Amino acid sequence: MKKPRTWTAETIAIGSELLLGGRLDTNSLFIADQLAACGIELRYKTTVGDGLTDIMAALKAAVRRSRVVMITGGLGPTVDDMTREAVARATGRRLARRKAALDEMVARLAEWGRTPNKSQFRQAMIPAGADVLSNPVGTAPGFVLSWKGAFLAALPGVPREMEPMVRDGVLPRLQEWLHHQKAVGVTPMVRRVLHTTGVPESVVDQTLTGLIPKGSPIQLGIYASPMEIMVSLTGPAAIQPQGTVSIDALCAEARDRLYDILYGEADDTMESVVGRLLGEQKLTLAVAESCTGGLIGHRLTQVAGSSAYLDRVAVTYSNRAKIEMLGVPKHMIARHGAVSAEVAAAMARGVRERSGASIGLSVTGIAGPGGATDKKPVGLVYVGLDGGPNDTLTKEFRFHGGDRSIIKLRSSQAALDLLRRWLLKRGRG
Amino acid sequence: MKKPRTWTAETIAIGSELLLGGRLDTNSLFIADQLAACGIELRYKTTVGDGLTDIMAALKAAVRRSRVVMITGGLGPTVDDMTREAVARATGRRLARRKAALDEMVARLAEWGRTPNKSQFRQAMIPAGADVLSNPVGTAPGFVLSWKGAFLAALPGVPREMEPMVRDGVLPRLQEWLHHQKAVGVTPMVRRVLHTTGVPESVVDQTLTGLIPKGSPIQLGIYASPMEIMVSLTGPAAIQPQGTVSIDALCAEARDRLYDILYGEADDTMESVVGRLLGEQKLTLAVAESCTGGLIGHRLTQVAGSSAYLDRVAVTYSNRAKIEMLGVPKHMIARHGAVSAEVAAAMARGVRERSGASIGLSVTGIAGPGGATDKKPVGLVYVGLDGGPNDTLTKEFRFHGGDRSIIKLRSSQAALDLLRRWLLKRGRG
Repeated sequence: MKKPRTWTAETIAIGSELLLGGRLDTNSLFIADQLAACGIELRYKTTVGDGLTDIMAALKAAVRRSRVVMITGGLGPTVDDMTREAVARATGRRLARRKAALDEMVARLAEWGRTPNKSQFRQAMIPAGADVLSNPVGTAPGFVLSWKGAFLAALPGVPREMEPMVRDGVLPRLQEWLHHQKAVGVTPMVRRVLHTTGVPESVVDQTLTGLIPKGSPIQLGIYASPMEIMVSLTGPAAIQPQGTVSIDALCAEARDRLYDILYGEADDTMESVVGRLLGEQKLTLAVAESCTGGLIGHRLTQVAGSSAYLDRVAVTYSNRAKIEMLGVPKHMIARHGAVSAEVAAAMARGVRERSGASIGLSVTGIAGPGGATDKKPVGLVYVGLDGGPNDTLTKEFRFHGGDRSIIKLRSSQAALDLLRRWLLKRGRG
Repeated sequence: MKKPRTWTAETIAIGSELLLGGRLDTNSLFIADQLAACGIELRYKTTVGDGLTDIMAALKAAVRRSRVVMITGGLGPTVDDMTREAVARATGRRLARRKAALDEMVARLAEWGRTPNKSQFRQAMIPAGADVLSNPVGTAPGFVLSWKGAFLAALPGVPREMEPMVRDGVLPRLQEWLHHQKAVGVTPMVRRVLHTTGVPESVVDQTLTGLIPKGSPIQLGIYASPMEIMVSLTGPAAIQPQGTVSIDALCAEARDRLYDILYGEADDTMESVVGRLLGEQKLTLAVAESCTGGLIGHRLTQVAGSSAYLDRVAVTYSNRAKIEMLGVPKHMIARHGAVSAEVAAAMARGVRERSGASIGLSVTGIAGPGGATDKKPVGLVYVGLDGGPNDTLTKEFRFHGGDRSIIKLRSSQAALDLLRRWLLKRGRG
């Protein structure tokens, strides 16, 4: 007996280089959110190389288990770009050159002062019966078609070409297709994301125990990564029958329970949250880093407009640099060591005073693998904050079980979170 | 008719958070290389959420097309960790607590001064007949089993737990299994990776045209990413029949052709290569960053032992910081602008002189989206290097078509590459 497929989706990312990893996948989050708004849940992601038979096998496996299949990549002009041919062969269609697709490509290239070369003509070859999707950003058109009761979309792999094509080309056609298919039980879904930091996953888990009422369609997810514990609530977008609690009400309750370990929502990052608070309070920041090596500065400057509040960062990797750039007393380093609460405080004070910024933030610690002693193990980190005379605080952290890279990440997060809490307290009072 | 499966592999990454992306996958590259050494090519990567039936469906699809299936993730202690149960149900085995697995977990926790909690006991539940793999780094044991002519391995998702388990636990068992299966046509393969930077993909492509002789089993791959063009050569590890060229000979030829755009091989990163050169020449470095915001310092300090050659980094985001921390003349900024070759040179000189380091390296540019003028567009970046009196150089870059984050990455790479080339030239004498 054939198992009925549910109204779920699968992405197929095409490209041999993707099999080798080392690349950040940002496409699937975008596709997942867009499909959720149509009531379609993303359940599988497949990655496959450029081999024709491998792609065909992936397509066939996908339509067996998913009603919506979103293919990304393999639409370029080179012989390695096999998506068009794989879809045509798998679905038993022939490839034909489409005039509309060709004209649009020629027009786009003309805008850039170029004419299509021979291999670019390949991009206008589309499986018969497919609906062509125009590409307002690049040269490769996409397409959608219906096959064996599944909706197939072929899209460019580059996010800035794929995203508008999904919004403007795929979603209206998917909505129409769902309507034609008389898709039942398809409920538009939304996802809310809350970001927490500073406590382990088990604490977040306990804090949210019993949040979701029994029988509620809303799902709670808790995901740990080196810098944070992320909480997601996924559920129907529309107001549910009487007696059920809405996703917004549950989200508000989650916010209350998480309280100060909650640092942001949705696309917020710690650096964007801190930047917003600094901007609101019209304060400027100077940073003194040791073991994080520039990571805090790097993160803060990922935010557009950060030059408004970030004055400078001193990465004082050597003791000499700590003394010269920040005025940390030599005898203090000799007495307490460079990794100490005293030095963290002196670094924060020094960078604030020398820069004239409102706040000085500092980190000193042992990222490993070398540099540890019996009393000062790898993962021992001090964070300091100086907001003016008699307003200095330091905090000790002991990070276990991570390599150099993870200790750097966690140290930078701890420092920025200390600053966030200080700014929140200052803003309230 | 059932299609015969080839000796290829598939990875299944388990975790709902992975479906949402936003995370760098480093596991598949490692697994691909390890399997290639056994003659097994990685052909598919599947990602699936924590749902029991979804994982079971993914397992079944995988064994239909691949003889080797490597599952990562879902071995933790929480109720979301479904790998053990999914494998047991899919393969029709029961889960049983294994004493050896339990003892090892208790011992590991004891080392950390902890005792197992109730949920951690779940981790010792292993499908009947499976071979338990010990975890010398974490608490979750892995396991391997043979099912329907396929070799299945279940591994932790965390790289530093997964990697030793593959090397010490999986590979010997896989070799033995392949021997028992009388695997024919399985040729151990090797992959050589060369890293290039500073030129577009098309230049690397042209440079390597005709490298691989006709009929050779060796495959050439060229993969572009923001900071580099990566070249890979994949082919049989053993010496081939007379008349064919070995992978090592082709690799040597590729090195010659790529010459100075080749910056590293295999696991090399630009920062590790630069660090090695600095160490060999016993030189120290000080860095002055503007638009990169600390990224160069962050990258340099990702390398263990970098404190031996990195003295300090000054992230001078404001003009005042450039003047105070580096001694850049105020009138120079007024006349040429902070983003200019003159200021880049003054920053490099200033940070070298004030630190006493052998070399000063600097970057100033416009990362965008704001800050551009008609004459100075987003993506305009100047890199400076100062190696002592009368030894200053600067270079202008114009990076097109990338956001703030990509311009920062490319600027940091350009600065480190300038330093690499300077060090190479100096080393040659």
